[in-house]
Amino acid sequence: MQPHGILESVLYTRDLAAGRRFYAEVLGLEVVTEQAGRHVFFRCGRGMFLLFTPDSTATEATHVNGCLVPLHGTTGAGHLAFAIRESELEEWRHRLSAAGVRVESEVAWPNGGRSIYFRDPAGNSVELATPRLWGLAEEQFDT
Amino acid sequence: MQPHGILESVLYTRDLAAGRRFYAEVLGLEVVTEQAGRHVFFRCGRGMFLLFTPDSTATEATHVNGCLVPLHGTTGAGHLAFAIRESELEEWRHRLSAAGVRVESEVAWPNGGRSIYFRDPAGNSVELATPRLWGLAEEQFDT
Repeated sequence: MQPHGILESVLYTRDLAAGRRFYAEVLGLEVVTEQAGRHVFFRCGRGMFLLFTPDSTATEATHVNGCLVPLHGTTGAGHLAFAIRESELEEWRHRLSAAGVRVESEVAWPNGGRSIYFRDPAGNSVELATPRLWGLAEEQFDT
Repeated sequence: MQPHGILESVLYTRDLAAGRRFYAEVLGLEVVTEQAGRHVFFRCGRGMFLLFTPDSTATEATHVNGCLVPLHGTTGAGHLAFAIRESELEEWRHRLSAAGVRVESEVAWPNGGRSIYFRDPAGNSVELATPRLWGLAEEQFDT
């Protein structure tokens, strides 16, 4: 028995409005729900991308049906990689450029995988990568 | 155009050996590759779970084919949720208990989703959750 996948992946930001704009408008993720000053939750493929303000989630306990939702929250630059198709690499470069997002690095991995790295407004290291980087087929990310 | 899913999800720890034991032996994740003092990478369903030591990844730049792999690294308790089946909840409770892992909280969500929360050795908030929590079917996590 082991987990069947990752359901929620998380980054933190102190400026939730800037983060929301970035992930919704530049990356094109669908906003599922949000709570001012605490979080914005996005759907991404079969999983969820959760953006939290650590000053809220590390100190203000919330409860659901009387049960604690545990505290968490980090400072510093987190990291996360989103899956893209190899055929979309050029279009992503154009979109990032048009949005004024500086590409920090591009990596061509020995196994044929490709990565584009840039920063979100909070300084998190965001990566767009082809599934081949981890020996996965692009079709495995079809929903 | 938007990302097709999340390819890499990340947590940090200062004790990589304890983290490796926890995620490999308690959660049952497959170790794909590791570098002493820097990282252990696990496969989880269609994605990767990357465990890093922030003292390394936030300060020591690495290069691949001459290209920079950007710096990142956080302190504090991060969060991540793994997808499990509802039929496995009881077995997970037993496994955590047998491994001496204290369940911090269990939440029964209004939509029928279920979550079990506990801490990894670094204090990260780890969640085992049923996909229903986000309106997803368990079968969507079959690989």
